[in-house]
Amino acid sequence: MKIGTGSKLLFIGDSITDAGRAKPVGEGLFEALGKGYVNLVAGQLGAACPERRIRVVNMGTSGHTVRDLKARWKTDVLDLKPDWLAIMIGINDVWRQFDLPLQSEIHVGLEEYERTLGELADAARPGLKGLVLMTPFFIEALKNDAMRARMDAYGAVVRKLAKSRKAILVDTQAAFDAYLRHQHSASLAWDRIHPNTTGHTILARAFLRGVGFGG
Amino acid sequence: MKIGTGSKLLFIGDSITDAGRAKPVGEGLFEALGKGYVNLVAGQLGAACPERRIRVVNMGTSGHTVRDLKARWKTDVLDLKPDWLAIMIGINDVWRQFDLPLQSEIHVGLEEYERTLGELADAARPGLKGLVLMTPFFIEALKNDAMRARMDAYGAVVRKLAKSRKAILVDTQAAFDAYLRHQHSASLAWDRIHPNTTGHTILARAFLRGVGFGG
Amino acid sequence: MKIGTGSKLLFIGDSITDAGRAKPVGEGLFEALGKGYVNLVAGQLGAACPERRIRVVNMGTSGHTVRDLKARWKTDVLDLKPDWLAIMIGINDVWRQFDLPLQSEIHVGLEEYERTLGELADAARPGLKGLVLMTPFFIEALKNDAMRARMDAYGAVVRKLAKSRKAILVDTQAAFDAYLRHQHSASLAWDRIHPNTTGHTILARAFLRGVGFGG
Amino acid sequence: MKIGTGSKLLFIGDSITDAGRAKPVGEGLFEALGKGYVNLVAGQLGAACPERRIRVVNMGTSGHTVRDLKARWKTDVLDLKPDWLAIMIGINDVWRQFDLPLQSEIHVGLEEYERTLGELADAARPGLKGLVLMTPFFIEALKNDAMRARMDAYGAVVRKLAKSRKAILVDTQAAFDAYLRHQHSASLAWDRIHPNTTGHTILARAFLRGVGFGG
Amino acid sequence: MKIGTGSKLLFIGDSITDAGRAKPVGEGLFEALGKGYVNLVAGQLGAACPERRIRVVNMGTSGHTVRDLKARWKTDVLDLKPDWLAIMIGINDVWRQFDLPLQSEIHVGLEEYERTLGELADAARPGLKGLVLMTPFFIEALKNDAMRARMDAYGAVVRKLAKSRKAILVDTQAAFDAYLRHQHSASLAWDRIHPNTTGHTILARAFLRGVGFGG
Amino acid sequence: MKIGTGSKLLFIGDSITDAGRAKPVGEGLFEALGKGYVNLVAGQLGAACPERRIRVVNMGTSGHTVRDLKARWKTDVLDLKPDWLAIMIGINDVWRQFDLPLQSEIHVGLEEYERTLGELADAARPGLKGLVLMTPFFIEALKNDAMRARMDAYGAVVRKLAKSRKAILVDTQAAFDAYLRHQHSASLAWDRIHPNTTGHTILARAFLRGVGFGG
Amino acid sequence: MKIGTGSKLLFIGDSITDAGRAKPVGEGLFEALGKGYVNLVAGQLGAACPERRIRVVNMGTSGHTVRDLKARWKTDVLDLKPDWLAIMIGINDVWRQFDLPLQSEIHVGLEEYERTLGELADAARPGLKGLVLMTPFFIEALKNDAMRARMDAYGAVVRKLAKSRKAILVDTQAAFDAYLRHQHSASLAWDRIHPNTTGHTILARAFLRGVGFGG
Amino acid sequence: MKIGTGSKLLFIGDSITDAGRAKPVGEGLFEALGKGYVNLVAGQLGAACPERRIRVVNMGTSGHTVRDLKARWKTDVLDLKPDWLAIMIGINDVWRQFDLPLQSEIHVGLEEYERTLGELADAARPGLKGLVLMTPFFIEALKNDAMRARMDAYGAVVRKLAKSRKAILVDTQAAFDAYLRHQHSASLAWDRIHPNTTGHTILARAFLRGVGFGG
Repeated sequence: MKIGTGSKLLFIGDSITDAGRAKPVGEGLFEALGKGYVNLVAGQLGAACPERRIRVVNMGTSGHTVRDLKARWKTDVLDLKPDWLAIMIGINDVWRQFDLPLQSEIHVGLEEYERTLGELADAARPGLKGLVLMTPFFIEALKNDAMRARMDAYGAVVRKLAKSRKAILVDTQAAFDAYLRHQHSASLAWDRIHPNTTGHTILARAFLRGVGFGG
Repeated sequence: MKIGTGSKLLFIGDSITDAGRAKPVGEGLFEALGKGYVNLVAGQLGAACPERRIRVVNMGTSGHTVRDLKARWKTDVLDLKPDWLAIMIGINDVWRQFDLPLQSEIHVGLEEYERTLGELADAARPGLKGLVLMTPFFIEALKNDAMRARMDAYGAVVRKLAKSRKAILVDTQAAFDAYLRHQHSASLAWDRIHPNTTGHTILARAFLRGVGFGG
Repeated sequence: MKIGTGSKLLFIGDSITDAGRAKPVGEGLFEALGKGYVNLVAGQLGAACPERRIRVVNMGTSGHTVRDLKARWKTDVLDLKPDWLAIMIGINDVWRQFDLPLQSEIHVGLEEYERTLGELADAARPGLKGLVLMTPFFIEALKNDAMRARMDAYGAVVRKLAKSRKAILVDTQAAFDAYLRHQHSASLAWDRIHPNTTGHTILARAFLRGVGFGG
Repeated sequence: MKIGTGSKLLFIGDSITDAGRAKPVGEGLFEALGKGYVNLVAGQLGAACPERRIRVVNMGTSGHTVRDLKARWKTDVLDLKPDWLAIMIGINDVWRQFDLPLQSEIHVGLEEYERTLGELADAARPGLKGLVLMTPFFIEALKNDAMRARMDAYGAVVRKLAKSRKAILVDTQAAFDAYLRHQHSASLAWDRIHPNTTGHTILARAFLRGVGFGG
Repeated sequence: MKIGTGSKLLFIGDSITDAGRAKPVGEGLFEALGKGYVNLVAGQLGAACPERRIRVVNMGTSGHTVRDLKARWKTDVLDLKPDWLAIMIGINDVWRQFDLPLQSEIHVGLEEYERTLGELADAARPGLKGLVLMTPFFIEALKNDAMRARMDAYGAVVRKLAKSRKAILVDTQAAFDAYLRHQHSASLAWDRIHPNTTGHTILARAFLRGVGFGG
Repeated sequence: MKIGTGSKLLFIGDSITDAGRAKPVGEGLFEALGKGYVNLVAGQLGAACPERRIRVVNMGTSGHTVRDLKARWKTDVLDLKPDWLAIMIGINDVWRQFDLPLQSEIHVGLEEYERTLGELADAARPGLKGLVLMTPFFIEALKNDAMRARMDAYGAVVRKLAKSRKAILVDTQAAFDAYLRHQHSASLAWDRIHPNTTGHTILARAFLRGVGFGG
Repeated sequence: MKIGTGSKLLFIGDSITDAGRAKPVGEGLFEALGKGYVNLVAGQLGAACPERRIRVVNMGTSGHTVRDLKARWKTDVLDLKPDWLAIMIGINDVWRQFDLPLQSEIHVGLEEYERTLGELADAARPGLKGLVLMTPFFIEALKNDAMRARMDAYGAVVRKLAKSRKAILVDTQAAFDAYLRHQHSASLAWDRIHPNTTGHTILARAFLRGVGFGG
Repeated sequence: MKIGTGSKLLFIGDSITDAGRAKPVGEGLFEALGKGYVNLVAGQLGAACPERRIRVVNMGTSGHTVRDLKARWKTDVLDLKPDWLAIMIGINDVWRQFDLPLQSEIHVGLEEYERTLGELADAARPGLKGLVLMTPFFIEALKNDAMRARMDAYGAVVRKLAKSRKAILVDTQAAFDAYLRHQHSASLAWDRIHPNTTGHTILARAFLRGVGFGG
């Protein structure tokens, strides 16, 4: 497994990451890590290799776009000095273009997305032992759906950045697509965004596979 | 307008119809008609033609399938002696096949749907001045989506029954499709089922057009 | 229809306009537009002409008089740069004279009302493509009721201003009067101010007629 | 004062009487008598003549018509064996005709009102030392308002019954009319039915005057 | 009646006066005057002489002593420019000496009470048409109870000040004593401080008698 | 100490005993014993002599008189088969005579009190190893207070019964009187009935002294 | 993996199993499976092998002992006709002996535990394709702790029954012991019974390993 | 008894001391002292020797370590000028090392604990008549439990400081150990930290014995 003993692993993102975590810092007793994939990852790491003493911190915030991450990057990422950083952002950057199509000032276009995400990755890189870039996703099997197509474009940016920044890529969209070959999206999430436990487990499994966790 | 002076117009259906109506009978002061298309229809009728004194009753119940309607048809429809009856059912009959695919005992198949809906229409017919059959819908533009395709099959049943029972047909799916040519489904409903006010207005307008309301 | 494609339409007023809108800005997902006539107007515009992409913003605030509007005119109207502006104010200016007759310092007299409303209209005019002035109203059929008479005087001011400012006039009082020829005010609003859905539909229909919406 | 030492005085009626009283029997500690005129009457009797030891019981129930009183007359009046009985009913009998004009089955017409109220008075008479009949009211100064006119007709029935049953008449409408010569109804009650403390004091004063309480 | 037409009558005191009034200023719609004697006084004035247009403001605050009144005298009394001022303070000054006997720093002794109350009365006097000083009270019949005896000493100060400042004296203790000749204190207030409606009516009647209200 | 190893000790009474205990049976985890003297007694027994394994059950019920105890004596005492039984009842029997003096049907007179309490003691006696009779109390130092005097009469009955039934007497009134020589009743209980922790400790100490607990 | 396609897998047990599941049947949308190991197992099965269509039902109930399971075995297990059944019971059977040591009537001794659990397993066996017996556990490393020792005795019974009934044994205690070699129990559960997500993941992993899930 | 008449006794510590006390200062009416041992101590002192007039103040704060006490020592101890001071701190200093083993920055090591506690004691000493140092505790009988062993090391520091500062030592761990010879820790506290009333009584008894209270 790539994440070494005593590492501090920080997740940042939107509501999928947040999932009701403690504020201002998502770490500690009770449900501090929220109820999503971050919590599932921490559970697997703690259960399977307690001797590794891997410290998990959840800094996701519901509704955020990459523009919002930029505004809190120093306090919420850099100041916390993680060893490993996982970023999953972009869903709201795309979603607002479709559910609030008239409020264009809150849309984050592809160019701004790529530029900002690159800047954030670069700013965090120096202190990191590992960087994980997770694609945004839309739990929809039909690639000609307009929002799915747009999300795929944002996902392509993440893949490109993962390559250029030598980060681990976690292709969450591909993970969901594998499931969607067997069941309809309605069985994971009515809104195709906020999954149930099965959906979060898909995310957690994709992350763990990405970092070489054997289970 | 087809609905005559002094008529009692009763709507029955699922959560789209229910929309938070008063229980056990959805009629009266305050938000007794709920916050959905039934309320919008009543508002238009009351505002445009108060002299018609049309009485609107909402008997929708969240989560119901045509099988559930059958169980309460006497108390919730026949006993209330409506002059006009509008039925919109079938969404949950289909949805459960996709969001809870393993619980097959709660799925209502196409054959049972057609048979039951026909029985209910026939049972109510004698006392009615007008019957309105509204198709179920799925706010999804892509007709090759599996759930959309299934919903279209149930909608076809409604169209068939409207013809055979000489009922007014309100094709809600067609009404949504017209909108979806311009905007994505996310702008009406994240879950593609429970619409916002714009979506309920689409339903209300389709109903009112169906009964010849000039506005 | 007079409101052109891509227009931003802002409503400002008191509790009738507010109707539980989101704060600080009444725009966005869920019930951001409140539950009143503004929401009904937005529903009709979105349902009937989605291709027009008209953006609706609700900036009503419960309890406000024209004096209160003046205090927030910059942040709540000018800074939001609407293309179309609809103002309905004056109900509380009058009502407080009758329900709290002894607290004269919170009464807004006719002269102050006319002067302030004129200033606000003038301040907003430059950037606007269209201005809609809606009269305040009292849902009372008897014109010799003291409060109705006073409200009519304030309504006359709005009519005068609409003429002098070349604004579209929406005579809400006339719209309610048409209804009251058939039913008592109690069927719309116990307090004769805060109407039910039928009453809000009367307001929405009057507004839409004013801007040439064919429906 | 007509109500003798040790008497049990029972009030029955609708929400004006109820005013949040304890259920099932409105007597005892804390706010058992509700927050309306019954409580004010009890306060005056207790404060001015504690040596009289007059026991006050509040059996009003919100929303009730004379038809509802009939259904609970035995348990809520006769079984409690009052010495004095005060009845104020009829507001909802009339109001529903105006706020829910289409639901005619819940309207209590004048004939049924007169007959039922007479029966109830007669049934209670035998055990009573005193009977007080209070007119229903509508806090509206203009007698040509349709609902005011209708309420006056019901009030006339009470006056007639008071005479034929030799009961004390408390003309609550007249008491409000005296106030309305000086202030608008809005200063007592937005809905013209549920008054503030000043309005309940008007009712209490009218009752106390009726039973000869000198204050 | 001594309080002239158009007068503004302000009450200040502790929880007996406060009784749940609106904050920061106890005036306006709904239960702005609280549920105590101030509300009852306002109800009687409004009901009996609406043409006098007497404006009642409640500035009582729960838990306050005369030391607390001093700290808010400018904002809560002088700035509001009352025509008539009624002060009832001292209960907590005494009570804390008995229920929290060890926390001597919050006790307000007799000397401080007299000096402060005098200062406050003098500061308010210039702008007033009438000043009413109400004694504090303890609803206890036995004068040899230690707390009753202490309260009587504070009441004597109020009587002295009323004479020297030519204020109207309202002896609330005497009013309660008259009642206590017939019933035990438990029938008015379990804690002998916060009375039920009968007890507040005793206070209201004493005040109204003091200002010459004939009722 | 008189209560032997493995004994089950059951307390029954009114709100002083109840103090928020679990229902229907006051025994078990968390705050099952309530927050009053029963809980304090159990705490002392458990802390000082855990090896005794004394089981404490709280069956007090707020508002109850001896008449209410009689109605539930079988289910709440006999069926639970206690080894030791402590009864403290009578406060409400007396209190209602003073706070609700007109509702005589709920007053429990001295004769009924003595007879019923004797019957209950006799019914429970056979299975008991020990019976403790605790006097009711009124936290008032002045014996000429009417309610204190009445309570003393009920306490005298308990003393008499303790003697005739050879029960342990716990004179709670005497315990409070000792305290009242130093501090006013207000420091224990505003209503002179429901004491704070110091007052409940006085009760617990009196009980423990009665059963020979050395502490 | 041993659990075949289309199987219905039912879990029954106490609060560890329950974990907030839907009542009366723990199956369906939202958090119907609760927040514990059952939910984690379902998530892994759904995520890793959606094509297997394994249906998971949670019938755990907080606080239950094997005696309680017996009372609801028919409705909650047999009537639901599971293909696979997993039972984890015994924690409360033991815990009550230590946290409520005096209430012996609610303790379930070893003999009753063995006999009852055997009966239940035998009753369910006929219709099953697979039976999983999970030991109860106490998250405590020191085997000489009295409650740990007692729990081990109950666990031994489960091991014995698994052998005699040819059931799959899941030794949850052993799974926790492996973790406790690295970290203190406080990092999993303050009360050593209700674990956090890491602890539930330990349970889920042990179960999945037991049924041959490769992950 | 060592605590003299009129003394002010201040307790400071963590959640065991806090127990829901009033904020910002834990003194006064109602449950100002919380529901723990401080409240029990105050109850015993008030009940047994009201003439001593000992004033008890509770300044415990949940979750605090000695590091947190240092930050509020001036406002929460020195400024309140106690005559007697009791300190019980250290539980969280140790517990966080076991329940959040990876968050080392919030662990308070033994050296820092000893140094800080010594500084605080020295800072408070000058104005004190008496200082009481209470050991932290872990309600666990097995001394080879890792957390118990660590807590014992912190307790040893307190014993050392009590000797060097001539403070009264209250060995709370020893008090609990005496109980644990008879019953398991589960009967006092599931988490072995927050005890029920029996556990708080053990603490109160240990404190009272320490200050020579004869009871």
